[in-house]
Amino acid sequence: MQKLLMTPGPTTIPEAVKLEMAKDIIHHRTEEYSEIFKELSENLKCVFKTKNPVITLTSSGTGAMEASVTNLFSKGEKVIVISVGNFGNRFIQLTKLHGLDVKEISYKWGESAKPEDLKKVLSEEEDVKGVFLTHHETSSGVLNDVSAFGKILEGTEILFVVDSISGILSNEFKTDEWRVDCAISGSQKGFMTPPGLAFVSLSNRAQEAMKKSDMPNFYFSFAKHLDRLAEGQNPTTPAITLIFAANVACQLIKKEGIDNVLKRHKKLQILTALGIEALGLEFFVKNSEDRGSTLTSVIAPKGIDGQEVNKLMQEEGVTIAGGQADYKGKIFRIGHLGDVNELDVIVTFSVLEKVLYKLNYREFEIGASLKAIQEYLIKNI
Amino acid sequence: MQKLLMTPGPTTIPEAVKLEMAKDIIHHRTEEYSEIFKELSENLKCVFKTKNPVITLTSSGTGAMEASVTNLFSKGEKVIVISVGNFGNRFIQLTKLHGLDVKEISYKWGESAKPEDLKKVLSEEEDVKGVFLTHHETSSGVLNDVSAFGKILEGTEILFVVDSISGILSNEFKTDEWRVDCAISGSQKGFMTPPGLAFVSLSNRAQEAMKKSDMPNFYFSFAKHLDRLAEGQNPTTPAITLIFAANVACQLIKKEGIDNVLKRHKKLQILTALGIEALGLEFFVKNSEDRGSTLTSVIAPKGIDGQEVNKLMQEEGVTIAGGQADYKGKIFRIGHLGDVNELDVIVTFSVLEKVLYKLNYREFEIGASLKAIQEYLIKNI
Repeated sequence: MQKLLMTPGPTTIPEAVKLEMAKDIIHHRTEEYSEIFKELSENLKCVFKTKNPVITLTSSGTGAMEASVTNLFSKGEKVIVISVGNFGNRFIQLTKLHGLDVKEISYKWGESAKPEDLKKVLSEEEDVKGVFLTHHETSSGVLNDVSAFGKILEGTEILFVVDSISGILSNEFKTDEWRVDCAISGSQKGFMTPPGLAFVSLSNRAQEAMKKSDMPNFYFSFAKHLDRLAEGQNPTTPAITLIFAANVACQLIKKEGIDNVLKRHKKLQILTALGIEALGLEFFVKNSEDRGSTLTSVIAPKGIDGQEVNKLMQEEGVTIAGGQADYKGKIFRIGHLGDVNELDVIVTFSVLEKVLYKLNYREFEIGASLKAIQEYLIKNI
Repeated sequence: MQKLLMTPGPTTIPEAVKLEMAKDIIHHRTEEYSEIFKELSENLKCVFKTKNPVITLTSSGTGAMEASVTNLFSKGEKVIVISVGNFGNRFIQLTKLHGLDVKEISYKWGESAKPEDLKKVLSEEEDVKGVFLTHHETSSGVLNDVSAFGKILEGTEILFVVDSISGILSNEFKTDEWRVDCAISGSQKGFMTPPGLAFVSLSNRAQEAMKKSDMPNFYFSFAKHLDRLAEGQNPTTPAITLIFAANVACQLIKKEGIDNVLKRHKKLQILTALGIEALGLEFFVKNSEDRGSTLTSVIAPKGIDGQEVNKLMQEEGVTIAGGQADYKGKIFRIGHLGDVNELDVIVTFSVLEKVLYKLNYREFEIGASLKAIQEYLIKNI
């Protein structure tokens, strides 16, 4: 059996995407390259559900997050950063690092952000220039209601920057309808492509803000990227193989249909939840409505180190993710995004049961999780 | 026949490197990944000829050039930037953009930098914190004598930052012996790997300067990269497939032997020069000692658009590079670096003769370039 990557990025890569990278490379300053990059850029707009341009950076998602701060704001400007975990905290770090005046709205890990809290801070603070929000928080599995936050910003000129690095394609995301000015994603999550690319959508409002920013940018200059986007070019040498791979992945996504991709992820989330419940395990995200379809985070049973669960599962050929920061060892995270299907969930629970049993967690009937998943599968044919 | 990439990056990729990227991806927060990344980091030290750490960034070379400015210097510090072309000019742009006090030493494109000019400026300027130099200038094919500049800096605390993005592996480069504090390279040149990675060596002096810099860095923070280097990890998600590909490429380079790789490139340079002379064409770099073994830049014959030469050659399956900036259309550049050999040069000249003939440049005996190359090959068996 092929090793299984049930992690929230990098994800398992479809064969066609892998083989694309093994092809002879072509030079990027050619029409052939430009045609493919143009196609990718259009595909990204389709996935982001936006009419605005989506630029592609050669970097991880963090590079794009930092670039959103340095391209769209000026030093001293007031912004509100909403954090529900590790990656929300990264926005706090980045905005502070670059000299913005940061008002934080932070939540306990595992809880989602409340729109009324943003309303309250907005009523107290004057001259807010931007709001930063995480769509899906990879560290906990919490999904924020981006749409509700966007509604609050209607009628204002406040920039809405949303990290949907692990959110998009496993959860509904509507850039324009939700009034998102700058949406950020990465190649190694829902896009089923290896890491190395970040995607950034820019509304007119974001593009206007970009012109006024006083921070220096060269490699990450959004303006330079936008300048060359229409001709299918990049300001500096792009990660050509990854761009071609991402384009093939987008073709697969379009073939499956974005709605079907979303439905598949929702189903995988349901199956995983059934398995977890059948094993008597506890969800880290208490409120089921706050859980995304990207991953399921689970509290390690009493006396069991979450890292051990990961380690033993990896030895059996299934890689899941551990907890981050304070939650290292306390939770484990089962990713179910990218090129995965229901059989991968079956395999994952077969291994999880075995590993938990080995670690002396035996509060379940052997096979219970597989039975629960199987029942759903057969009753929903 | 496979299409031939005679460009100064991206270069033709060896089969083993291409196939490496088509393998199943693994997660980067695993021991398996760390082992490979550690191996790559050691291989890079070997190629850079340095005892200092070499960090790997997910970005193009420009990203690393910008990062060398923002990590190693503070605003207002005085630096000398030596430019012999497009990429030297990029260092001027980057240092100015980030608020350094920049003293420029610029040369006409096609000429190499003179060590005595640096000596002179150093004697006139006080408190110089850094010197920026391009090893091999990709825009013109000029090779600078890094060693001679390094000697001038002996006994000072001035940081020596060298862009060897297209220089290393096709031309001798000795980081430590030449007193280079920060050497920069990229995956898509001598490393025979697709673009997307940049490599940066950091001397103790550079690491000390890093601690004093007042500029904000997160994604490109050298400190964050150094912190995790020993454990074989990266601060954010790295371009995993490219890292594995670069490691396989380094294995191939070590197998061939770095000295043999350099000799091969020197030979390709000689063969290309013989071909150019046999066609009665003019070198853009007048002084033969100033030419690197990365590429050969050629002045387009009178009345012929250099871009046309490129275009027609590409139609015949051989991609070369055009002129940049003011030299667009005026020169063309034949890359001979990476996974190329003497037969690739033969093929290139077969196509070049044909294309020049088509464009009505006929100041040569048909087959003259092939004959000249062939004579060298047979007499040097």
